[in-house]
Amino acid sequence: MLDRLGEVAVRTGLNIKPGQQLIITAPLESASLVRRITEHAYKAGSSLVTTFYSDDEATLARYRYGHDETFDTAAGWLAHGMTEGFREGAARLAITGSDPVLLADQDPSRISRAARAASVVNRPAMKIITSFDVNWTIVAASTVAWARQVFPFLQDDEAVSELWQAIFKASRITGGDPVAEWAAHNTQLHKRAAFLNDARYEALHFTGPGTDLTVGLADGHHWAGGAEKAGNGVICNPNLPTEEVFTTPHRLKVEGHVVSSKPLFNQSSLIDGISVRFEGGKITEMHAVKGQDVLARILDTDEGARRLGEVALVPHSSPISQSGVLFKNTLFDENAASHIALGQAYSKCMRDAEGLDDTALAARGANNSILHIDWMIGSGETDVDGLTSDGQRVKLMRKGEWVIS
Amino acid sequence: MLDRLGEVAVRTGLNIKPGQQLIITAPLESASLVRRITEHAYKAGSSLVTTFYSDDEATLARYRYGHDETFDTAAGWLAHGMTEGFREGAARLAITGSDPVLLADQDPSRISRAARAASVVNRPAMKIITSFDVNWTIVAASTVAWARQVFPFLQDDEAVSELWQAIFKASRITGGDPVAEWAAHNTQLHKRAAFLNDARYEALHFTGPGTDLTVGLADGHHWAGGAEKAGNGVICNPNLPTEEVFTTPHRLKVEGHVVSSKPLFNQSSLIDGISVRFEGGKITEMHAVKGQDVLARILDTDEGARRLGEVALVPHSSPISQSGVLFKNTLFDENAASHIALGQAYSKCMRDAEGLDDTALAARGANNSILHIDWMIGSGETDVDGLTSDGQRVKLMRKGEWVIS
Repeated sequence: MLDRLGEVAVRTGLNIKPGQQLIITAPLESASLVRRITEHAYKAGSSLVTTFYSDDEATLARYRYGHDETFDTAAGWLAHGMTEGFREGAARLAITGSDPVLLADQDPSRISRAARAASVVNRPAMKIITSFDVNWTIVAASTVAWARQVFPFLQDDEAVSELWQAIFKASRITGGDPVAEWAAHNTQLHKRAAFLNDARYEALHFTGPGTDLTVGLADGHHWAGGAEKAGNGVICNPNLPTEEVFTTPHRLKVEGHVVSSKPLFNQSSLIDGISVRFEGGKITEMHAVKGQDVLARILDTDEGARRLGEVALVPHSSPISQSGVLFKNTLFDENAASHIALGQAYSKCMRDAEGLDDTALAARGANNSILHIDWMIGSGETDVDGLTSDGQRVKLMRKGEWVIS
Repeated sequence: MLDRLGEVAVRTGLNIKPGQQLIITAPLESASLVRRITEHAYKAGSSLVTTFYSDDEATLARYRYGHDETFDTAAGWLAHGMTEGFREGAARLAITGSDPVLLADQDPSRISRAARAASVVNRPAMKIITSFDVNWTIVAASTVAWARQVFPFLQDDEAVSELWQAIFKASRITGGDPVAEWAAHNTQLHKRAAFLNDARYEALHFTGPGTDLTVGLADGHHWAGGAEKAGNGVICNPNLPTEEVFTTPHRLKVEGHVVSSKPLFNQSSLIDGISVRFEGGKITEMHAVKGQDVLARILDTDEGARRLGEVALVPHSSPISQSGVLFKNTLFDENAASHIALGQAYSKCMRDAEGLDDTALAARGANNSILHIDWMIGSGETDVDGLTSDGQRVKLMRKGEWVIS
């Protein structure tokens, strides 16, 4: 199964091209998956695979032993190198699997200083990813620390094994021909995106317990989902798994209140029971039952951190949602529920965006930030309507399920 | 002991400064040592520790599955990033421990193409290291593949454990106060280097079974050894262990013939039973019992690959030599025997070299190459004399031991 996940990551996720370099970021514990991916990448003709391993223990050592004045430091030199790699055409694969609450007991101010410093230096590389200039994907690997959080009542080895099974299933690789099944799944997502692109709604209206939120869409927004063509011409699947169709909200046109439907894990901390009010696109009131201080620091990161950069629709019947597993990891949880994202918009979710700078895109409503944080708001009780420019209301989802064909 | 090695690496090897970033390169299997080093670096005030893990399995996958036309590719973008990191003052720590014969069964032409491509892009970073602009060090970690080569008749876990013990002992950390013992050892090495610097020999003359070699020294050569002050003002120990005093030979003034006293492991291949003839500083004849094709490709890398960039004196009674262990790793084996190095000279081994470019240094005899490969020629039967400019001959070593006070 590990080999199959490696093959699907390379063929479906990245669709790596002969002669293309590949840059992998991965937790140390995921070396066995990295090796499968590396083999498949070389078989597919990759000219060089470079892996950057991260180590939760080393990250924690910084908080335990590092001097306080050093927490604004980031590896700018490495960010510059990676940006050059992507500019020269390297593909990017990220493996997620770190401890979702690694820094739960650490000083939130240090966490946010370190995260901010990293975001600033990583911005040019992230821009290449959010602009979809190169083919990229994210897959997951089961690790002890993560598995403990997902299956707290199991022994470590059982938890790791259960989490692997959940990843394999959610990643749609347990059937007879995963590459073919992914092709069929992509066709479904493309059909949904095409419907929404034809409709050109002015706004989406979300209702549910505690939620009454109108999300205006950006001028010339574009719905995406499933496999897409990157700026380098390569058709790839940026997330494995992916169940969403998504587009760019208007940064100034979000109104109402909304509550989170799943906990959010960000900056290695837990934020739960979030409720916020939007006025003129901006969060003007917020509350969280857990992690309110972390959320407050996130919202204070920059001007764009209080505004939306993405809105995504996911049916409640998605396999991940049906599995009943709360993965405590955005890659999975965002594909179990409709969601919004604070921060940076994807320029690939804007029509005719080529050559436009941030200012031009912002004028059409696309948000700008060093962050991009997905945040789940959908459930089996969520209704979604599309609002047209001539005042019509079209039912899109009822009780979390699509009601369009 | 692992923690002690980590502490000595940070305090004696690097002497890392508060606010200084640290870049580590390490085999995947050495994560436990990397974590100890990371902790001690943060305790000492390092502002950020970034580790690049290498994985023998991934390297091998390239040779097994990679397409032939891709072997001239290197990660130039990463080399540029690391160079920037060093230019901005980051310290560098390398952990050695990869399989010494990982690529023994692979196509030598591919190995040399890949090594050459990597050397070319890494040259600016290597220049910073060979010019000793920043504090850096190398330490070792025991790994299964390496331990198997050193102790082929032991079980894997026993071999790994034996190799760790040998590393701890050779690295002089098994006594009561390793940091103090290193200080005393450094004083000894400084005394030897001072003697040789005062003497200003014109050449060294090596004799022994199969060897009669005169190594002219560069004009204004400088003997170094033990702890030294880097260009950034930090006093560090570039190798742990280190038993050598070394200087720059004259690239045009090496005459005679020499045989190797230990096998050479380079480009993950074994080269053994080397004998070569030098004329006018250049290797004009060469033979190797094993790995002659690999050696031939090394010598053809560039003009400077056939000339010497370093000559080093190590007594046969060094602890590493006395341990009787053939480590099959340059960091250790070069500290068990006097040696010469093909390729790039160290500008720190030239007096008044600051601000001089390659051409100016070459005019004084310092060699230039993208390679630097140490090669053992000393043994318990080696005699070394110093030749002065006025024709005197001074006995330096007899039967491999120092005979100067």
